[in-house]
Amino acid sequence: MNRRIILNAIGIVLRVEAVLMLLPTAVGIFYGEKAAFYFFLTSLICFLVGYIPNLLFKPRNSTIFAKEGFITVAFTWILLSLFGAMPFVISGEIPSFTNAFFETVSGFTTTGASVITDLESLSHCTLFWRSFTHWIGGMGILVFVMAILPNISERPIHILRAEIPGPIKGKLVPRVKDTAVILYLIYIAMTVIETVLLILGGMPIFESIVHAFGTAGTGGFGIKSDSISGYSPYIQWVITAFMLLFSANFNIYYLILIRRFRSAFKSSELWCFFGIVAVAVTAITANISHLYNSFSDSLRASAFQVSSVISTTGYCTADFNRWPTFSKIILFLLMFMGGCAGSTAGGLKMSRIVIMFKQVSKEIKHLIHPRSVGTIHFEGKPIDTATSKNISNYFIIYSICYFAITLLISFEPFSFETVVSASAACFNNVGPGFGAVGPAGSYADFSNFSKYILSLAMLLGRLEIFPIIIALSPSSWSKSK
Amino acid sequence: MNRRIILNAIGIVLRVEAVLMLLPTAVGIFYGEKAAFYFFLTSLICFLVGYIPNLLFKPRNSTIFAKEGFITVAFTWILLSLFGAMPFVISGEIPSFTNAFFETVSGFTTTGASVITDLESLSHCTLFWRSFTHWIGGMGILVFVMAILPNISERPIHILRAEIPGPIKGKLVPRVKDTAVILYLIYIAMTVIETVLLILGGMPIFESIVHAFGTAGTGGFGIKSDSISGYSPYIQWVITAFMLLFSANFNIYYLILIRRFRSAFKSSELWCFFGIVAVAVTAITANISHLYNSFSDSLRASAFQVSSVISTTGYCTADFNRWPTFSKIILFLLMFMGGCAGSTAGGLKMSRIVIMFKQVSKEIKHLIHPRSVGTIHFEGKPIDTATSKNISNYFIIYSICYFAITLLISFEPFSFETVVSASAACFNNVGPGFGAVGPAGSYADFSNFSKYILSLAMLLGRLEIFPIIIALSPSSWSKSK
Repeated sequence: MNRRIILNAIGIVLRVEAVLMLLPTAVGIFYGEKAAFYFFLTSLICFLVGYIPNLLFKPRNSTIFAKEGFITVAFTWILLSLFGAMPFVISGEIPSFTNAFFETVSGFTTTGASVITDLESLSHCTLFWRSFTHWIGGMGILVFVMAILPNISERPIHILRAEIPGPIKGKLVPRVKDTAVILYLIYIAMTVIETVLLILGGMPIFESIVHAFGTAGTGGFGIKSDSISGYSPYIQWVITAFMLLFSANFNIYYLILIRRFRSAFKSSELWCFFGIVAVAVTAITANISHLYNSFSDSLRASAFQVSSVISTTGYCTADFNRWPTFSKIILFLLMFMGGCAGSTAGGLKMSRIVIMFKQVSKEIKHLIHPRSVGTIHFEGKPIDTATSKNISNYFIIYSICYFAITLLISFEPFSFETVVSASAACFNNVGPGFGAVGPAGSYADFSNFSKYILSLAMLLGRLEIFPIIIALSPSSWSKSK
Repeated sequence: MNRRIILNAIGIVLRVEAVLMLLPTAVGIFYGEKAAFYFFLTSLICFLVGYIPNLLFKPRNSTIFAKEGFITVAFTWILLSLFGAMPFVISGEIPSFTNAFFETVSGFTTTGASVITDLESLSHCTLFWRSFTHWIGGMGILVFVMAILPNISERPIHILRAEIPGPIKGKLVPRVKDTAVILYLIYIAMTVIETVLLILGGMPIFESIVHAFGTAGTGGFGIKSDSISGYSPYIQWVITAFMLLFSANFNIYYLILIRRFRSAFKSSELWCFFGIVAVAVTAITANISHLYNSFSDSLRASAFQVSSVISTTGYCTADFNRWPTFSKIILFLLMFMGGCAGSTAGGLKMSRIVIMFKQVSKEIKHLIHPRSVGTIHFEGKPIDTATSKNISNYFIIYSICYFAITLLISFEPFSFETVVSASAACFNNVGPGFGAVGPAGSYADFSNFSKYILSLAMLLGRLEIFPIIIALSPSSWSKSK
């Protein structure tokens, strides 16, 4: 294994984090907050630590295999979270290290599950950093690194493969670096548009930026205990729209940009996604109508919550924990579906679900008409056996992980519903669940053990399982190749 | 499609049911109960209806494809349940047709989910028939038909394939008919042994027979509202042992019979099954120890409930709904696992789970060492790509069905926990779940709509999904072949 190159890549990412941490420092200085100093201190430490591999281990060759890519990704995210948690602990705003680590992992993995019960007491720079981690995590910092640093632009195809969510990677342009730049520009532009629309709706500038970060990363950290409930209907609709926009495949925006509208709107994944959203919104609106004064109120609450859960964002405008069981079961299923491949959303991803449906209907067709032989097509291309097998295996390991996480956190004195939904909400990077972890609750009362398990769950979900398993597997580290 | 042969096969099964119904009639006569007459009446109607296809549609040829096999199986089980429900309705002991149908489907599918809240008021012949349906359903009445009626013994290989549970069918002996006879003899012998052991423990003869039927079919219908709680520890241990014995692969007993002990105990499925049982019993015993007076009490309760759930029987000696969440989550996972392939148990089956685990660990190994190429082995034989794909697809369609059922019954005014566990308990043919459908509750309060959905769930689970879907699929019935 090429350990030197792994260490070097991690070093670069840490230095990037150090630079990014200057932003909350600036926010803190602007608001005259003491915590700004701790962000600056952490940034300095982070930069120095990130420099060590560069000094000590010059990579001898730049050969990198999938294994190295997976391990780099796994360790990058863990170290990002460790350093990202430091200012919270040093400043005393989240005194417990476990809580600070959980909160930062939740940030970078764009989960939005929180252990903080008194959000309003936090400083501006801390609130900014919390939401900024969503934005950084949303598109994957490694893609960012590749876009910024040309010197490693040729090799990280394996890193990219491990990090971009979803089963199939549509290549936009031949060079990885160019793809990354285009994706980032779209990402930044959409975040800016959302911020402007929120400011136009009367939301203060700081709050608009922070909420745009939370939406763009499909994260869900807000700055108020009641999440988005207190804002105007206009603001709620803007956020609803952007939660959906950020869970569509980013390739589509690129196609729209280059005016290939027909290709953009031919995506069957996109139509399935919006079809499911429409059905879920309709069903829940009808199911909760008796709880609201008007049709427009129940429609808005339903549309917001459906978009929030299927995009795995996790913002709330209603305590959906009090909704009827039918609505809760729909939301529970949406948690597992998640957004489209190639978006910032978590979950199984719509494309996998569509392909799995096609797989089983082909099987049923074959049982009815044994002579029928059909190939599955997706987005106009045939799906080969290897992709099909990968998706099935992913679904199997995904289910195993989900059940294992649920079992490991079930020691807690919480209800069946809380435990089952907490592990689903963390593993799928949604954030809030039902029961004690519902919109009105938090993850604060879980034991430290469970908080680490749930942190692992968030990382597994965000990195699509394999990088973490490979990094933790002893056989990856054995001498023999 | 060869409709004549389907109708003929169904006719034969109905006539067999008519004959089997003479047994509860005899029980009713013995106890001097009026209900005996209604069983006799139903038996007569059943026989006459079963004779119609034989008179009207002589099969022109005996060609039968998988499709015909699946459709025969699906309709057989539905008609068996319709006729099986008649005496309950006519006698007025279960006046609602929906309830009677639910109860009979629950019987034949060996689920044991009940809508009866006052078991003690039922007549002996009704109680006998309820449990006898478990015993009939346990090994599949079609296997029985093949064993009894030599005239169709050559063709029903496709029927057998659709009905014997589990992914791989180990052929014991070359001829289907002989296999069926051997399996039935083992089944009968084990039922007799259990009955004798229960009688020796002081259980009245009628109760011993009825409980042996419930155990053999891994069904779970008892005759008391508190299930097995009121019986002695000896009786509870006997039932625990037999629940486990009936969820092992029956091939193993055949191998033991012909003294091939080494082959019998080499089964990795068997060892995994007992390994999981041992771990679950240990974990739950520790978790519930504070609720019981002594170690032996908590061990007995834990062993009984673990065996009951993993074998998908559903007998209870404790209200496990009041156990801590950790124990409940374990039981919930066991519901989905189920027993071994080729047993009377429901669920996913241990062999599928073992093979799926091997599939994903092979994938992980391949990611770490890309040059590694391994074949998966199971029970000493390599698993080919087709089997592997079938298992993955089964798991996908199984998950889709589970979620669809859960969604369809979630309109009910029950908790999240009740709904999620009710669909798991019915689909996996377990019986009791948590919340309102826990050991102390029943399915009585569900709406008629949900009772039909849950009946469908039981049939889907018992027949391993495909027969029901193919029978309900319009394209099976289209003229073109």
